[in-house]
Amino acid sequence: MIIIGEKINGFIPKTLAAIQEKDADYIRSIAKGQTEGGADYLDICAGVAPELERETMQWLIDITQETVDTPLCLDSSDPQLLMELMPLAHKPGLINSVSKEEGKTEAVFPVIAGSDWGVIALTCDNNGIPDDPKIKLEIARKIVAEADEAGIKRERIFFDPLVTTLATKQDSLLNFTEGIARIRAEFPEVHFTSGLSNISFGMPYRKAINMQFLCLAMAAGMDSAIMDPMSPDMQATLKATDALLGNDEYCMDYLTAYREGLFPVKPA
Amino acid sequence: MIIIGEKINGFIPKTLAAIQEKDADYIRSIAKGQTEGGADYLDICAGVAPELERETMQWLIDITQETVDTPLCLDSSDPQLLMELMPLAHKPGLINSVSKEEGKTEAVFPVIAGSDWGVIALTCDNNGIPDDPKIKLEIARKIVAEADEAGIKRERIFFDPLVTTLATKQDSLLNFTEGIARIRAEFPEVHFTSGLSNISFGMPYRKAINMQFLCLAMAAGMDSAIMDPMSPDMQATLKATDALLGNDEYCMDYLTAYREGLFPVKPA
Repeated sequence: MIIIGEKINGFIPKTLAAIQEKDADYIRSIAKGQTEGGADYLDICAGVAPELERETMQWLIDITQETVDTPLCLDSSDPQLLMELMPLAHKPGLINSVSKEEGKTEAVFPVIAGSDWGVIALTCDNNGIPDDPKIKLEIARKIVAEADEAGIKRERIFFDPLVTTLATKQDSLLNFTEGIARIRAEFPEVHFTSGLSNISFGMPYRKAINMQFLCLAMAAGMDSAIMDPMSPDMQATLKATDALLGNDEYCMDYLTAYREGLFPVKPA
Repeated sequence: MIIIGEKINGFIPKTLAAIQEKDADYIRSIAKGQTEGGADYLDICAGVAPELERETMQWLIDITQETVDTPLCLDSSDPQLLMELMPLAHKPGLINSVSKEEGKTEAVFPVIAGSDWGVIALTCDNNGIPDDPKIKLEIARKIVAEADEAGIKRERIFFDPLVTTLATKQDSLLNFTEGIARIRAEFPEVHFTSGLSNISFGMPYRKAINMQFLCLAMAAGMDSAIMDPMSPDMQATLKATDALLGNDEYCMDYLTAYREGLFPVKPA
């Protein structure tokens, strides 16, 4: 599993407060904590008004890179800004995100083509977020065709088949996993990722749904997640699922995470 | 999901202590608690020396039936004893268990044939517990053939494809789910059940593995579990998984369980 740490994100109230108060120590603590929790990338998202986004992103990038050398996942809805921020990164990371909304791939693909950067690609377009796995696949086909043409290897694409909210849509998970299955059948080289918390919006005790969504999405072939690696419950879910799916020889990762104190219980 | 409450079982240390101290109040409390947690059946297992098993089973059956009217799941490795205890039950329940070990189906099937009792059938025989899903299916075929001949409807069979211990066998889950898939393809009418805790034997923080085993087994078609419905974590796992798999219209069961206080958080 490729873990993208979600916490350096101004849409999370605690992180927004730290941004507003210029509390660099808090940003450092979540950069360090997520890295110790096994994050392969750290998402950096300002979550502030557009006129403040550039300077906030720069500040977050600087503090994070002073603290850890984990690659960054630059997260903004403004593809031009992402391209301008890329050179600040000390090493190749991920661009979060493109989609078939107008102007996204056009801005990003030419710039990352000659690099080792990867890209998160959402299966949506100007018509919005499709529920239908067939339309998710159609959008994925267009994005892969453009990536092929730009010379971006398919291994560098992380598709996010955009799970919808379970409270309003009973087949949210099934549309998501069927989206993975269809895209994977055609493009076995790509990765799949997702934020874990959208699906539980509006429900009580969201953690239970987020945990079982992670488990079921992994069983369906999701090999990356945008998640909180500092959450003991999510860590235990991740490691237990990986072991059960036969991906963790002798349960070594599970046992190591337990011994490192990443689980909800103290190691014996 | 058909829930078989696991707690009235002398192999559980706390229950064994209650049996040894004739603490009827404790047995009453777990009979009531499991029923309130949604148990469809209550497993009754003595877990004591053979010479004490009959009187212990009778005591447990009497106390349980005085307290709740949940059907019983009579659990013993002695099929003759199970057949002698059956008439004590106030209503049809489950026999736990038969297998292709010699003498099991021969003792049980003729007696339950003319009744509404169901039966848990383990996919093992005198050669032990097979890992290979093909052998699990072969054993299931023999059991179904005997049930057919005895006039026992296939809907009354709960196959337990006997999950092995993950710590010693990396493909424990996959052999189990593949066993379900093969048996189900041939016999779509049968149910599938399993105890949830064998798989985590010898591992730390077993709860994480048991929770994700429940989730993944449900995704593979397991429609019953022998579990503790008084465990808030297991309840939340069960209800979240059911909702995610599209089996819980408008998430009504999930929301009801939350409001009834069955989850790890107090309802708002």
